[in-house]
Amino acid sequence: MKVSIVMGSDSDLKIMKKAIDILNEFGVENEVAIISAHRTPEVLDKYISGLRDRGVQVVISGAGGAAALPGVIAALTPLPVIGVPINSSNSIDGWDSILSILQMPSGIPVATVALDGAKNAGLLAIRILALSDKDVAKKLDDFNSNMKKAVLSKVDVLKEQGFNAAPL
Amino acid sequence: MKVSIVMGSDSDLKIMKKAIDILNEFGVENEVAIISAHRTPEVLDKYISGLRDRGVQVVISGAGGAAALPGVIAALTPLPVIGVPINSSNSIDGWDSILSILQMPSGIPVATVALDGAKNAGLLAIRILALSDKDVAKKLDDFNSNMKKAVLSKVDVLKEQGFNAAPL
Amino acid sequence: MKVSIVMGSDSDLKIMKKAIDILNEFGVENEVAIISAHRTPEVLDKYISGLRDRGVQVVISGAGGAAALPGVIAALTPLPVIGVPINSSNSIDGWDSILSILQMPSGIPVATVALDGAKNAGLLAIRILALSDKDVAKKLDDFNSNMKKAVLSKVDVLKEQGFNAAPL
Amino acid sequence: MKVSIVMGSDSDLKIMKKAIDILNEFGVENEVAIISAHRTPEVLDKYISGLRDRGVQVVISGAGGAAALPGVIAALTPLPVIGVPINSSNSIDGWDSILSILQMPSGIPVATVALDGAKNAGLLAIRILALSDKDVAKKLDDFNSNMKKAVLSKVDVLKEQGFNAAPL
Amino acid sequence: MKVSIVMGSDSDLKIMKKAIDILNEFGVENEVAIISAHRTPEVLDKYISGLRDRGVQVVISGAGGAAALPGVIAALTPLPVIGVPINSSNSIDGWDSILSILQMPSGIPVATVALDGAKNAGLLAIRILALSDKDVAKKLDDFNSNMKKAVLSKVDVLKEQGFNAAPL
Amino acid sequence: MKVSIVMGSDSDLKIMKKAIDILNEFGVENEVAIISAHRTPEVLDKYISGLRDRGVQVVISGAGGAAALPGVIAALTPLPVIGVPINSSNSIDGWDSILSILQMPSGIPVATVALDGAKNAGLLAIRILALSDKDVAKKLDDFNSNMKKAVLSKVDVLKEQGFNAAPL
Amino acid sequence: MKVSIVMGSDSDLKIMKKAIDILNEFGVENEVAIISAHRTPEVLDKYISGLRDRGVQVVISGAGGAAALPGVIAALTPLPVIGVPINSSNSIDGWDSILSILQMPSGIPVATVALDGAKNAGLLAIRILALSDKDVAKKLDDFNSNMKKAVLSKVDVLKEQGFNAAPL
Amino acid sequence: MKVSIVMGSDSDLKIMKKAIDILNEFGVENEVAIISAHRTPEVLDKYISGLRDRGVQVVISGAGGAAALPGVIAALTPLPVIGVPINSSNSIDGWDSILSILQMPSGIPVATVALDGAKNAGLLAIRILALSDKDVAKKLDDFNSNMKKAVLSKVDVLKEQGFNAAPL
Repeated sequence: MKVSIVMGSDSDLKIMKKAIDILNEFGVENEVAIISAHRTPEVLDKYISGLRDRGVQVVISGAGGAAALPGVIAALTPLPVIGVPINSSNSIDGWDSILSILQMPSGIPVATVALDGAKNAGLLAIRILALSDKDVAKKLDDFNSNMKKAVLSKVDVLKEQGFNAAPL
Repeated sequence: MKVSIVMGSDSDLKIMKKAIDILNEFGVENEVAIISAHRTPEVLDKYISGLRDRGVQVVISGAGGAAALPGVIAALTPLPVIGVPINSSNSIDGWDSILSILQMPSGIPVATVALDGAKNAGLLAIRILALSDKDVAKKLDDFNSNMKKAVLSKVDVLKEQGFNAAPL
Repeated sequence: MKVSIVMGSDSDLKIMKKAIDILNEFGVENEVAIISAHRTPEVLDKYISGLRDRGVQVVISGAGGAAALPGVIAALTPLPVIGVPINSSNSIDGWDSILSILQMPSGIPVATVALDGAKNAGLLAIRILALSDKDVAKKLDDFNSNMKKAVLSKVDVLKEQGFNAAPL
Repeated sequence: MKVSIVMGSDSDLKIMKKAIDILNEFGVENEVAIISAHRTPEVLDKYISGLRDRGVQVVISGAGGAAALPGVIAALTPLPVIGVPINSSNSIDGWDSILSILQMPSGIPVATVALDGAKNAGLLAIRILALSDKDVAKKLDDFNSNMKKAVLSKVDVLKEQGFNAAPL
Repeated sequence: MKVSIVMGSDSDLKIMKKAIDILNEFGVENEVAIISAHRTPEVLDKYISGLRDRGVQVVISGAGGAAALPGVIAALTPLPVIGVPINSSNSIDGWDSILSILQMPSGIPVATVALDGAKNAGLLAIRILALSDKDVAKKLDDFNSNMKKAVLSKVDVLKEQGFNAAPL
Repeated sequence: MKVSIVMGSDSDLKIMKKAIDILNEFGVENEVAIISAHRTPEVLDKYISGLRDRGVQVVISGAGGAAALPGVIAALTPLPVIGVPINSSNSIDGWDSILSILQMPSGIPVATVALDGAKNAGLLAIRILALSDKDVAKKLDDFNSNMKKAVLSKVDVLKEQGFNAAPL
Repeated sequence: MKVSIVMGSDSDLKIMKKAIDILNEFGVENEVAIISAHRTPEVLDKYISGLRDRGVQVVISGAGGAAALPGVIAALTPLPVIGVPINSSNSIDGWDSILSILQMPSGIPVATVALDGAKNAGLLAIRILALSDKDVAKKLDDFNSNMKKAVLSKVDVLKEQGFNAAPL
Repeated sequence: MKVSIVMGSDSDLKIMKKAIDILNEFGVENEVAIISAHRTPEVLDKYISGLRDRGVQVVISGAGGAAALPGVIAALTPLPVIGVPINSSNSIDGWDSILSILQMPSGIPVATVALDGAKNAGLLAIRILALSDKDVAKKLDDFNSNMKKAVLSKVDVLKEQGFNAAPL
């Protein structure tokens, strides 16, 4: 198991699925847990404390509102923890989610990505895993290369819609 | 012991002292702890879980930045928990502190007071204790009465500074 | 009567109903009033001033926009007052509601909960009542225990949707 | 008496003095009161309810933080009420003061001016009084005319500092 | 003619109509103009400069985005000017509209009301006119009295929906 | 070629089209490119560096979220660069887009227009081109004149809807 | 005369001087005016309307608070107008200044730079002037080249302070 | 070389030094560069593109205002990039710095830490390096253990200042 994805509520799944999808696309083993920092603290403690020994290398955690989950996880494990602020139904346009994940006190870092940015959370995990896994590194180079091609192919959209496409 | 005051760092003491002072002024027994939700989760768990059995009735907790402490405490005890957002040195004008304490998920309430509003946190604890303690209730009535007198006495400030004081 | 729920407009009922529902779920007697701090100040004054003598122990008050109601109530009674900021139709994403309830001056505390967080307002009232009511305290322990079970049962959602559920 | 100036705390005097000064400069009778919407509601009620019968025509009210005062005053009198949000020591950069004065519900208008804008509050009162007082109207025209001259005289500042002043 | 209502675009009419409606309800003569501070500055200048001589006593002006209109009007006339920030389609949740109307420099006051608060703008004009018009003053007292009755009648809503209505 | 319009994603086209339309309306030659500062930096570098030699005089660039594109373009060319913050699907109400385009460091200016203000970006380019192109200058005068007429013609809207139109 | 710099108050001079300094450094003729959109509208109108005929090519305008000046100028001239939001003493951390300059309605563009970004306003004027003035264009290339050298020379700062400087 | 620390200006050194210090404390080789995304894009491109081949595993990048640097670096290398928003002198309380680093588009992740959170950036790099370096992992465990002890030792502060320290 390489990556653990932890969220506080099943309503976060539709955002967090983007992290899982990208990990699966890269063939990176992952497992998913729904645990709440506030509602199930003991279960969280036991699960997170055991991750390093089970070989997990990165934790991705998403939460909305007063989003304590990623920070509490980072307090329970020395593994790198990636936090995804979620613009959930009880959030104020995402500002509470962002600030309560980003503004961690000194000593307990959380690698925060954009609001609802679960795909980038997956890619950040992959960048970390690629440091020691040549297969993942190769796939990452291909992914980045394809991303460039996808942007450049947008010239066809411009032409289809009758714009004067610039010569790139 | 009636009230437990918990903060994450000794740098929060200069704000939280206002809660302790008001409790002492009312003669309400209190104890103070410096524990971090992120740095000392196990100690927090053990201390908070035992509070109800030790007779504590209210917990006041202050924190700044990504302030998980009050919410995590509220998850560990069924006692009423009062949260004080602190405009600490690592906070963005207090917005992170406020939102990460106020915007708790359903099921785990935290009674949030104003930014740096530790004095009101103490008074809120006193309002709760006054429900079952006639002595505290009596002192609270006196306190509120004196507060009114203090406002009305400001007419002297107006006169001293040469303003035309309104007839109240 | 244990809890009084006061709001400024019947348009706030759909949010405040969540507080009433949770009180009813716990079997806590409650009464509901629609009174405006701005439009019916005398009625508010008379009703609130009499609450303590009628045995009410907690007031829950919700309001939106320039939400003076909870603070004015807290000025008229020594009971603990819980404020619910409401993202009403005349509110700016709830920021005005939050700040005008949260940022009370020293001396007059309001226990503020999350934006539209009426359910937590009800639960906070229950935590306060549980201090002196063993039956309510027992139901609160059951409620918290069930909440944990509900989170843990989400593993079934994960499995149904084909995710690799983590071993908790 | 033409104008009543009401504030919640003597710490607001240093800002509100700018309104008093401009009224005095225009020779407009005024009186000053320190009353708190939260701490002295009954005194506020009695004083404000009597203003119209005493001939007062405009109320100017300043407050900071959860600033209920101007709105509560507007609920107690049919006179025009001018609100001054104050960036007081317990305010979050003035945002709470602004929103809790500005965002009044339908039916109870408060004429809000800029943060700490007490001078403009005084001038707004003067614009209202000038509608029925030719002497005040004349002084207002002179004031506006002098203000223009003061701006135009700034060409001297430019020349003194060696800038190439534009031909106006 | 007593009141002039000025807006920058016909898209603002659906909000500003609430001010016109309340003026009509009070029988206060009013006229409406669509003029832009940015697109038709000369027309604005000529129209506003002539208002006082035509007997107009109050100007109500609404605008959205970088809303210069109310302030520019206040610079062209000594009459009291009421500004209505509008959450127009090009506004950022109304923040730009509010700040560009509220934060006027010293010397040029604009009486700002809530975001989209055109009804209160009308009522503020009425409060000003009532100072010298007994008929309007009488209608305003009736309006305020009816508003109180409307709030109190909401007890029926509570009963219909099965809530335990408080004794008011 | 006079103007180059550059955006980071084809999803920005529906906003940026307003700039292209206004340029076409003025008969100003323009070309459009979809290039990402983050995904295709080398292509961006080569295309932008060559613009001045190809006779391009102004670059208009729109982007949303962490919108580095306009600033990076301004770093690669000495031409004036106009930035359009876009309220894209990954933006937080446009605040991120605005701040990451507006707050450029000293030395590298970007002429920022309103959120989604692509039409004004086109008109700003036209104002710049009009400095050295009499034909464009003439069309700009006509455009501004027509804009005034359009505002004034709104008096018909007022009359149609039964309002008392002011005499302009 | 190539560039006109207009501000509303002499207190803005300390910021706007940075624009004047950079223009002088490039040998670009400029003139400075202190005129207020609100306090001296007629003078503003006359001065701005005559700028194009006097050969001025760019206007730079700075203002703070409800900063109508740059927009009103852009309404009075077809020249490109550069707006500098100023964090003046009456501004709320600059937010009012930014939004009231940036969020201009369609039809009247203002090229907005960063808060207090007068130096970049000067450089943006220079980028515009460089389009038709080879001497200015040459100086701009030198300026940009020197700016790069200045950054690269910072390696000495690193070495002096004992850091391990990266090989660039 | 394990970690590269890149900032846009030597004025960022006083914040970024906290990352360097923590890396040195852990004995992790690091190098420091001052390069600007806007002022020296070619140098940045060349330096960053070569990092992976030189064995660098993590890049830490800090910037303030419209902070494009971390994102542009993440576009030029497949290594994990940690972004530090800096509350620099040209920043609006740090909001621009945070949003322009955090809100990266899909495909190019930046691991963002708190405002001025360079120490946590260093610790996040160490958590990543610890995945494949047992010595660093051991030191990290010691560091976390010491951090807990430091919090617990604060009980002495409480006792010294005469508070009733809670039994932990």
